[in-house]
Amino acid sequence: MTQKYGHYDFKVAPFEEDIMGALSWGTLGKLLLRAASYHAGAHGFGFDDVNTKSHAWVLSRLVIDMERMPRINEAYSIESWVTRVYRQFTDRHFDILTPTGDRLGQATSIWALIDMQSRQPADLTKLPDGGFGDVMLPEREICIAGPSRMRLSKDAPLVSSHKAAYSDLDINGHVNSIRYIEMLLNTFSLETLRQHPPHRIEVAYCLESYCGETLDIYAEQQSEGVYAFEIRRATDCIVKSLIYLK
Amino acid sequence: MTQKYGHYDFKVAPFEEDIMGALSWGTLGKLLLRAASYHAGAHGFGFDDVNTKSHAWVLSRLVIDMERMPRINEAYSIESWVTRVYRQFTDRHFDILTPTGDRLGQATSIWALIDMQSRQPADLTKLPDGGFGDVMLPEREICIAGPSRMRLSKDAPLVSSHKAAYSDLDINGHVNSIRYIEMLLNTFSLETLRQHPPHRIEVAYCLESYCGETLDIYAEQQSEGVYAFEIRRATDCIVKSLIYLK
Repeated sequence: MTQKYGHYDFKVAPFEEDIMGALSWGTLGKLLLRAASYHAGAHGFGFDDVNTKSHAWVLSRLVIDMERMPRINEAYSIESWVTRVYRQFTDRHFDILTPTGDRLGQATSIWALIDMQSRQPADLTKLPDGGFGDVMLPEREICIAGPSRMRLSKDAPLVSSHKAAYSDLDINGHVNSIRYIEMLLNTFSLETLRQHPPHRIEVAYCLESYCGETLDIYAEQQSEGVYAFEIRRATDCIVKSLIYLK
Repeated sequence: MTQKYGHYDFKVAPFEEDIMGALSWGTLGKLLLRAASYHAGAHGFGFDDVNTKSHAWVLSRLVIDMERMPRINEAYSIESWVTRVYRQFTDRHFDILTPTGDRLGQATSIWALIDMQSRQPADLTKLPDGGFGDVMLPEREICIAGPSRMRLSKDAPLVSSHKAAYSDLDINGHVNSIRYIEMLLNTFSLETLRQHPPHRIEVAYCLESYCGETLDIYAEQQSEGVYAFEIRRATDCIVKSLIYLK
């Protein structure tokens, strides 16, 4: 029987690091999505599997909380499993571990399975063949705080704009979920990032955005080391986020 | 004895593909640099090795020529070796191969070893311990056309600007060599990229650029399917490039 959690080994390779000399948030985020994709695929509900049934997995929430980022050349692993299925959503968890099993960090995510014709979410408790309920691993310990309430004040300023283009896009033509995180980190100065590296990032994905669209980034500091963001296309909210600096 | 060429196996992983459903140029470029780094490191002249001697490898030219990009989930390998050493420069070649050894594409690159104090290039024919002359593999077949003459006409228009930020940077704080390629590809429409995917990209790296700097991209079509670019910081030329579409 296939293990209920997926285990994927990595090593921080040259050019996967950021200016802090550790794994970049962009690389980590993409590897979390890769781990999710491999684990779902190993259990028959991967991106390709659901695509043949005209469905697509859509990421709704992502929280990444790192005690320490692995450094250049350091080995680490990502373990991922499904913790919960409840009608329109499923929760997937991630541990980021050293080779001896010490925790470098954790991540948690919420996904919906969208019918690409109707744009409606499928009821995940009523999938054929019992869905993937028997893959769940609710008993494994999790100790990451869930997403906070994210709300920007009305007068939060526009801090930058980005025109979505080729290198931002997924195979589906949407702006990649992780690229939004990079856009937000790009609003900080290098001095800030070096002195107060981010340790926790929360993202709520509200709407998709597409090539050529102008994405406006609004930001404000909410408390010591906590920054709130919204990425908007005109008045539409595309992404909300909180970034916690050390 | 260590093999003179490095062989590195890859598989196009989820989120390494672009909207064409094939390996993205950004991912391929980073993996070429990773292969160069691993191969140099295996022979004692890697980025870390030269860094301890206050030197740094600086990429001067890169040409990537693909007959076909590997598709999502497809296995492929990169083989890399040194073809030539001549005073201030060394040439490094790359084959991108299918698992059965058929060629998907090739790349060639020119590097200098810069003394970080004096900013002068080292004489690579006079390194201690014979340098890496005995790693060269000049006899292996290469059939990639070398870089062309790149010159933009004086009235080539400004097509976009990019402010360099966190996600563009290497560990050294420079804009990453491959990010420039992504910036150039970002100037094409999706329709153009889908109908006429790029098959050859030539880049000449002239100057480094840094966080917060505004990079202006000038472009013009030079002939059927051939586009010339310059990336400038004010009047300084940072990068020159030619992109060939199918």
